[in-house]
Amino acid sequence: MESAIPKSLQCPRTRRRRIPDDYTPPYPSTVARYKSDLARVVMGYFGVQYRSSSGREAASLGHRIAHAFGSDGGPRHWDRAQYIDEAGFTNILSVGYWDDPSTFENWFGMHGAGWASGTNASTEVGTFCEVLKPAIERFETLFSSDVREGVACIAEGLSDLVQEHAYWGGARDRIPMSQTDDMAPVGAPRIVTTGLHRRVIPHENICLIRSGQDWAATAAEERRMYVEEVEPVLRAGMNFLRDDGLQIGCFANRYMAVVDASGAVTEKSFGMSWWRSLEALERWAESHPTHLAIFGAAMKYLSTMGPAAKLKLYHEVTVAASDEQHFEYFNCHPRTGMLRADELSEK
Amino acid sequence: MESAIPKSLQCPRTRRRRIPDDYTPPYPSTVARYKSDLARVVMGYFGVQYRSSSGREAASLGHRIAHAFGSDGGPRHWDRAQYIDEAGFTNILSVGYWDDPSTFENWFGMHGAGWASGTNASTEVGTFCEVLKPAIERFETLFSSDVREGVACIAEGLSDLVQEHAYWGGARDRIPMSQTDDMAPVGAPRIVTTGLHRRVIPHENICLIRSGQDWAATAAEERRMYVEEVEPVLRAGMNFLRDDGLQIGCFANRYMAVVDASGAVTEKSFGMSWWRSLEALERWAESHPTHLAIFGAAMKYLSTMGPAAKLKLYHEVTVAASDEQHFEYFNCHPRTGMLRADELSEK
Repeated sequence: MESAIPKSLQCPRTRRRRIPDDYTPPYPSTVARYKSDLARVVMGYFGVQYRSSSGREAASLGHRIAHAFGSDGGPRHWDRAQYIDEAGFTNILSVGYWDDPSTFENWFGMHGAGWASGTNASTEVGTFCEVLKPAIERFETLFSSDVREGVACIAEGLSDLVQEHAYWGGARDRIPMSQTDDMAPVGAPRIVTTGLHRRVIPHENICLIRSGQDWAATAAEERRMYVEEVEPVLRAGMNFLRDDGLQIGCFANRYMAVVDASGAVTEKSFGMSWWRSLEALERWAESHPTHLAIFGAAMKYLSTMGPAAKLKLYHEVTVAASDEQHFEYFNCHPRTGMLRADELSEK
Repeated sequence: MESAIPKSLQCPRTRRRRIPDDYTPPYPSTVARYKSDLARVVMGYFGVQYRSSSGREAASLGHRIAHAFGSDGGPRHWDRAQYIDEAGFTNILSVGYWDDPSTFENWFGMHGAGWASGTNASTEVGTFCEVLKPAIERFETLFSSDVREGVACIAEGLSDLVQEHAYWGGARDRIPMSQTDDMAPVGAPRIVTTGLHRRVIPHENICLIRSGQDWAATAAEERRMYVEEVEPVLRAGMNFLRDDGLQIGCFANRYMAVVDASGAVTEKSFGMSWWRSLEALERWAESHPTHLAIFGAAMKYLSTMGPAAKLKLYHEVTVAASDEQHFEYFNCHPRTGMLRADELSEK
């Protein structure tokens, strides 16, 4: 067993971990390990938002971003997911991960900058990009199996079993920066609107979580447990965050189905949500009935299934500095992603 | 709002609280406040254990301890509760609280020492006493209403609303000693048997929790919620700890009904459990499906009912030094209280 924080990023602590040194987690988990000289990654969410009547235009944009992702300097890994939002729009997000910020910047200049700037505008559909460029000290991952997802797909591999998980506060303890910093939020995001184009002036220490599940390999009783006992509870929590999250510091939540290259829905899903701070995310997780129900259902599932569980779980949590964020929306409805921050500033 | 740790017990920290300084709990709670010169309390659990056929002998012992409690030097507050244990014995516990250790010692010499020593022995029934004498730095309380129970009944009163609650780790943060000490356990309890008499050689930093509920004032939908949605979940968790707790560091758990002066069961109950350490209690609370279900049910209940809730909740958690403990059992079955520690040492 080893620390979730790799040796190369360990430093003299001014803040303690939540757990005693002899803590042993009740079940195994691993984290992504990156090449030792990796200083920063890029996580880019490129979205299309449309009414079903505009499916052809949206599909064309989907092809365009896929082509761009496949071009020189494109992400080392990407996937795609979709959901129907609370306003009835379909949203398709193409999510790319880069391990070299300068490669990303070159690529973005060529292929990404026009995506949501309005320069290549169609008013048939909305487009947006939400990009984080976090330093390696500012994010963490966690995996219940040896199948990687998300940002971990650009890592070198997975760690040995790690100690910092299966307790409240584990995500914080896995983020290297938590050794010396409370990662408290500073300021609040502001929206700048120019016609149909809107961008976000970021605040310090926004938090993003992508938290996913893959039940393709489950069968029989395990599948029944996931579908009947876990998923409905997860969905209820995701809907709460989507509809009522703002009051507790969640700007936006998307509970999405991963789609394959043909656009067909797979047996993978993930929630992604934007939070005012890691602390706000922790508070919801620790004390809100919707998340306690999710965590309880998952722990019951895992303890019933034991090592035989075929369900794969993972997540990644990032706390980004203000200069590591880029949010841009074109022709999107006002409850899209970080645009909801406006509802707070109007109060 | 104020800290759960009174000003007189605050000291320069070497350990941080779990929460940021601007944390605001989602619902109100208070803690007991004691007179400022109080250095130590005594919590004494005096038990009778019997088969139903020996009810008369047990009742006689119940009268005897009640009389002793009413004598000079008796506890400033006491109550009584009962349950049927996993071996089918009825156990009646008379629980006294003293705010002056020397008064207790004098009283104990006169009235308590013979209780479980075997000197006043009847082999019809079993008797036991489990006594903690914790320094004021070593325990905490929490109340959801202004009605006191347990050790708080010997306090001066209740605090203003406190900050350190409604998050995992709150109990630790409310114990004054946590400012500078991790309260880790040292050693393991050992049982010394002399005929029918058994006593426990304590280990350092044993943990006791008494956690109770009073639903007498609930009505209609609230009562239905407690009886149908909360209590069964609570009972399942209590039964888990009773039957399978040892593997996770819980020596014993008793889920008891409070009885009135006539011996009739009231609409109050509490669980009391002995733990190897506060950390073991925290681990169960934070990660075990049985407690997550309890916490989730309680949070759903409280958030549904809001300030209108008539259910009263409280608890007290103590971490006791080895020289603050006294455990003695006479003619009790081997799964009684701390005697189960023997099952660990046999492994």
